[in-house]
Amino acid sequence: MDPAVAVQYARENKQRFLDELKTLCAIPSISTDPAYNPEIQQVAEWIAAKLSRFDAEKVQIFPTEGHPVVYGELLKAEPNAKTILIYGHYDVQPAESQTLKSWESDPFTPTVRGENLYGRGVTDMKGQIMACINAVEAVTHQGDFPVNIKFMIEGEEEIGSEHLEDFIIKHKELLACDYVLNADTGMVNPDMPTITYALRGLYACELRVYGPQKDLHSGSFGGTIHNPAQALCELIAGMHDDQGRITIPGFYEKVQPLSEEERAQLARLPKDENFYLSETGAPSLWGETGYTPEERVTARPTLEINGLYSGFTGEGSKTVLPAYAMAKISCRLVPNQDAEEVHNQIEKYLQSHAPATIRWELINARGNPATLSSRNSPAIKAIRKAFETVWHTQPVFKREGGSVAAVLHMQKHLRVDTINTGFCLPDDGMHGPNEKLHLPTWYKGTEALIHFFYNLANI
Amino acid sequence: MDPAVAVQYARENKQRFLDELKTLCAIPSISTDPAYNPEIQQVAEWIAAKLSRFDAEKVQIFPTEGHPVVYGELLKAEPNAKTILIYGHYDVQPAESQTLKSWESDPFTPTVRGENLYGRGVTDMKGQIMACINAVEAVTHQGDFPVNIKFMIEGEEEIGSEHLEDFIIKHKELLACDYVLNADTGMVNPDMPTITYALRGLYACELRVYGPQKDLHSGSFGGTIHNPAQALCELIAGMHDDQGRITIPGFYEKVQPLSEEERAQLARLPKDENFYLSETGAPSLWGETGYTPEERVTARPTLEINGLYSGFTGEGSKTVLPAYAMAKISCRLVPNQDAEEVHNQIEKYLQSHAPATIRWELINARGNPATLSSRNSPAIKAIRKAFETVWHTQPVFKREGGSVAAVLHMQKHLRVDTINTGFCLPDDGMHGPNEKLHLPTWYKGTEALIHFFYNLANI
Repeated sequence: MDPAVAVQYARENKQRFLDELKTLCAIPSISTDPAYNPEIQQVAEWIAAKLSRFDAEKVQIFPTEGHPVVYGELLKAEPNAKTILIYGHYDVQPAESQTLKSWESDPFTPTVRGENLYGRGVTDMKGQIMACINAVEAVTHQGDFPVNIKFMIEGEEEIGSEHLEDFIIKHKELLACDYVLNADTGMVNPDMPTITYALRGLYACELRVYGPQKDLHSGSFGGTIHNPAQALCELIAGMHDDQGRITIPGFYEKVQPLSEEERAQLARLPKDENFYLSETGAPSLWGETGYTPEERVTARPTLEINGLYSGFTGEGSKTVLPAYAMAKISCRLVPNQDAEEVHNQIEKYLQSHAPATIRWELINARGNPATLSSRNSPAIKAIRKAFETVWHTQPVFKREGGSVAAVLHMQKHLRVDTINTGFCLPDDGMHGPNEKLHLPTWYKGTEALIHFFYNLANI
Repeated sequence: MDPAVAVQYARENKQRFLDELKTLCAIPSISTDPAYNPEIQQVAEWIAAKLSRFDAEKVQIFPTEGHPVVYGELLKAEPNAKTILIYGHYDVQPAESQTLKSWESDPFTPTVRGENLYGRGVTDMKGQIMACINAVEAVTHQGDFPVNIKFMIEGEEEIGSEHLEDFIIKHKELLACDYVLNADTGMVNPDMPTITYALRGLYACELRVYGPQKDLHSGSFGGTIHNPAQALCELIAGMHDDQGRITIPGFYEKVQPLSEEERAQLARLPKDENFYLSETGAPSLWGETGYTPEERVTARPTLEINGLYSGFTGEGSKTVLPAYAMAKISCRLVPNQDAEEVHNQIEKYLQSHAPATIRWELINARGNPATLSSRNSPAIKAIRKAFETVWHTQPVFKREGGSVAAVLHMQKHLRVDTINTGFCLPDDGMHGPNEKLHLPTWYKGTEALIHFFYNLANI
């Protein structure tokens, strides 16, 4: 069993790997909008076909109450070999953007410019899925089976993996494994392979504020009716104090303070103020007093406004007093915070702060808690070594600000630890316009996964 | 010269008048959106043709830098007769509505239900224009010319009558008159003919708040970047205090206090708290402490949010940290307030309150001051008498919360007083969905205008 031969195979197939990724990314498998259900199905079938092509067994598209899960396995390793469950998601975020800077090439016509491939889903996470699949193909093509492999590729990550938990519970035995490999987290920069040991949880909802029963003429009624857009702004403005802290009573109650050791480790990451300024182009940074930017983004909870709508938003002006106003709100949660508790806290805040001059409702609430993983398991040692082989440097350990509900479900129901890694870069523009994948990093990532599989034979 | 014959003519032509109004209202002459420029032209031509049909002279569609003005005159009265300039606008508000309660019939398929005609522009103000035109037709069809009539029907009222002032200045002699009749204000209820002696002015703008250079993943950056939607809400929330007063420094500086006499008169209008509650369906009233609802709506300035937009507003959720957020803001101004001064005050407020964590700009600002008219001119006496004849009651005098920039321009450049009246009702839903015209009131209004023209021969 020689990883060098498998790596050679991967190198020889670079162009085909890229072409296949482009084909996969051209299909808009947007999970949040039912209009794209046919494309969701199409992508699930594409992946199933791909797995079948290199002799994966039990390849199946499992329907769920939402979007289907693709499963496949290669259980040909020695009796004592470890089993790795490769988790991924084939769904993507919507691509529309009403922002000023929009897509430079069509989001579903994957396009190479310089060292990058541009398109929706290239980095989040069709590129990452394909790095895993290509690595498995390269290893097994040599007839090597250093480890047993299972694939579970779902289609609802971008909408909270709502039906994945049920699927895992129902198929516990099929999914039984020693470790989960989740390539849906990223690197801190192209020179630093990265292992993520903590993911933030998520709470999301929509706040609607209602005033008059229909849009009114602001001249005929303005001054004596509480404008719902204004009332919404007042409620939102009250959710943070001038220290950037969230004012919702009880919100921080269960949040664990960061240890000095962990703060020191986070401080070693190449993510200082300048990093965040240059990545975002924001005029200056903001946030909770007393924490570094990296701590705020990964180890502290947040409350964000993801969308606002009220009244007239077209060209020109319209002197309307709108009947209602809406905000999409989400919170990133840290370990020990509970989404339902946060929902209740926000509801209580609204109950005590919303004036009698408006009506309100909190709808479409959903969420999941944060997760923590080991930094010292044998599998972590195997992947550390793989990264050292390919990048000639020790990987860094970091917390991630984003959320992967699947990790939570797998840890809870399969009772195994998750190795969170991946080859996404901080400037890849996930969820925004001009999402990209850095191809040299992607190729290196594939090679690192090849080494990882071989390393797992020796732990 | 017998008004009874003209009134009889109007009664005999009721159905035709309604049919013509439906034809006129079926054309979407939306002035704020250049896509409707052909319909603007079509409506101007329709009105010009209508005026020509009853022998108005010098009928002409005057181009302006914006939408055209329709002119026509009937100067056949005795040498000493008064000349009335009938002002109106043929443009309408957009009809789209993303609110919950929307149009029950197509806004541009005028539809009679019960006593009302439903459609965009039926009451604001194509119905009002046609009441004037039909009254003139009824009088002159008898060969009666108790008064000289000029028509000036513009196409930019709903977007601030931007080019009307230039037009008036250029055509001062053509437009010379003793009084302007402006039927673009309404009645307090169907039993109370109403004369409006004060109109609020308007200031409108768009506030844009910019943060990161593109939409960001809220997991990767949330917590250390000031969310532009949140920052916008904070700025807007700060524009009112908890007494409903506007906090913009200097905003109230030039506002004249209401006299006790005027407050007593406004208190006699049938517009108490219950009126405003039942007209709007709002859960409770709101506004500046120390003023009645009617005072707040007509004699006090306001600051309204007409629209909000940021980030993701579609179905479901998207965990985006938006690159920008936008609010459409407008102020209703009272006499002595100046739109440019208000603009500067808002700009200064933003300069001192906007944090360094965001960028902002105030764009598309426009405005016009408020106006006051006489309550005792001979023409006011003529219209009072006409209302008494038709409604068997004294008209009420009121201030109007809305704005008619044209009134300001005519008062300023033609140096004549304006008679502001009209047959629009408070529940007509101007600018909102299901705009309606109460047909019995409309017919009575036409008859009152017939009497008004005859009365003018005797003042």
